[in-house]
Amino acid sequence: MNKNQLFEQIKLKKSFLCVGLDPVLGKLPKHLLKYENPVLEFNKQIIEATQDLCVAYKPNTAFYECMGVKGWQTLVDTFQYFPENIFSIADAKRGDIGNTSAMYADAFFDAQQSEMSFDAVTVAPYMGEDSVKPFLSYQDKWVILLALTSNFGHQDFQLNENKDGKLYEAVIRKAMQWANSEQLMFVVGATRGAEFENIRKLAPENFLLVPGVGAQGGDLAEVCKYGMNSSCGLLINSSRAIIYASNGEDFAEKAREEALKVQQEMEKILIASALI
Amino acid sequence: MNKNQLFEQIKLKKSFLCVGLDPVLGKLPKHLLKYENPVLEFNKQIIEATQDLCVAYKPNTAFYECMGVKGWQTLVDTFQYFPENIFSIADAKRGDIGNTSAMYADAFFDAQQSEMSFDAVTVAPYMGEDSVKPFLSYQDKWVILLALTSNFGHQDFQLNENKDGKLYEAVIRKAMQWANSEQLMFVVGATRGAEFENIRKLAPENFLLVPGVGAQGGDLAEVCKYGMNSSCGLLINSSRAIIYASNGEDFAEKAREEALKVQQEMEKILIASALI
Repeated sequence: MNKNQLFEQIKLKKSFLCVGLDPVLGKLPKHLLKYENPVLEFNKQIIEATQDLCVAYKPNTAFYECMGVKGWQTLVDTFQYFPENIFSIADAKRGDIGNTSAMYADAFFDAQQSEMSFDAVTVAPYMGEDSVKPFLSYQDKWVILLALTSNFGHQDFQLNENKDGKLYEAVIRKAMQWANSEQLMFVVGATRGAEFENIRKLAPENFLLVPGVGAQGGDLAEVCKYGMNSSCGLLINSSRAIIYASNGEDFAEKAREEALKVQQEMEKILIASALI
Repeated sequence: MNKNQLFEQIKLKKSFLCVGLDPVLGKLPKHLLKYENPVLEFNKQIIEATQDLCVAYKPNTAFYECMGVKGWQTLVDTFQYFPENIFSIADAKRGDIGNTSAMYADAFFDAQQSEMSFDAVTVAPYMGEDSVKPFLSYQDKWVILLALTSNFGHQDFQLNENKDGKLYEAVIRKAMQWANSEQLMFVVGATRGAEFENIRKLAPENFLLVPGVGAQGGDLAEVCKYGMNSSCGLLINSSRAIIYASNGEDFAEKAREEALKVQQEMEKILIASALI
């Protein structure tokens, strides 16, 4: 999906919500345990209940890998269950030397090899240019590069400052030389609201993937005030607040209610910003 | 495997070689294509041919993920084929927020969940403390943290300098507060020979995993001169130079010859250093 198509989906659905599909077997509603693959059934019902309210799904690969081969199969099956016109993100935080990153690109972008062809993959910047570029050789596929993350550990290195600014700023500046806003997004944690204004100076046109709204404490209105641009420019992720809204038989219905609340708030913001 | 056991294996085998198991289907000897799983057969024969000459195996997960579910199964089968007393490294370069890194730790350390229990996993430092610590909660399991990598992209961020030094130095200094040398190693590229002396000042006791000897151009003698400590302190990885020594029917035999050459060089260095 290209940038224009993504913006069209945002206007159509009046939403820039990304639902994080991070299922933990121990947290699933008990009645799902009768299914052969409770995690897959959970994902399917969450997708059915939310697909008209969100523009993206983002499975985090850790939640699948921890279940071994069966988990990887569940990731494939989940990917294949995504509806058309959904922006799909493999939240994998990969990155390796060039020829190895090319293998990761195949893993998430080349369905002929891996049965999965996500629109985007999250990438860690530490290893630099050749660790990122192989992902960019696929047309209309995206790198979502970690810039300023929402966890407390972000302060260990990402804020390290030298004469040219902070490390996360250096990451953004350098990555902008590798790709334009048609293939490059950045991860910016919502718990860092005050930094959005600064980030928009560095990356005015790029979409930002924003985790941390909801369970991690970020504020949607503040993120939008400082982070929105003329193509919306934001994908706001919510995982736990939506998928674990209830752990009873009504989990999908409650997930929909939570997603709807967020979508309605987003609709108001899109109208106020004259984007719809 | 703990640090002392690893050093004992090094002395026993007179080797600190790690063989990187990074198989690419298109590069395999043609006669293996008749097997149901050529990649697994390749790995098995490489392991059979080299296991007395190396102390560690390091499959890079990218080379398995790119083959989808079947690839992940091959990774599991390869892990399960490792002989006893081999130090096993999942070269996965993972790292995420705390609760998610815990899932990655399960994926590579908890055999009950994933059928794999590697001794170590490589971790990317960008997300800081809570992205690293979950891996340390497993007894005798190791984090091998990216510090100074061997690819050309290392210069983009790892050498960024401020008043406290370079970024990779900050990574080493901070990580030393999270774990001691019984659970923490660092990745240091052999192409950066001159930096080993500096790194040994920061991390005198820690093992260093050193890729880049062989195909990437690093020099073993120089790395050992500056990087060796009283417990050896080095695991030198070689992938392509060994596993692709021949692409004929003699590939395993030729891989053994290459591994033997490296082992013999290492034996001389261990003797010269009075470690054996």
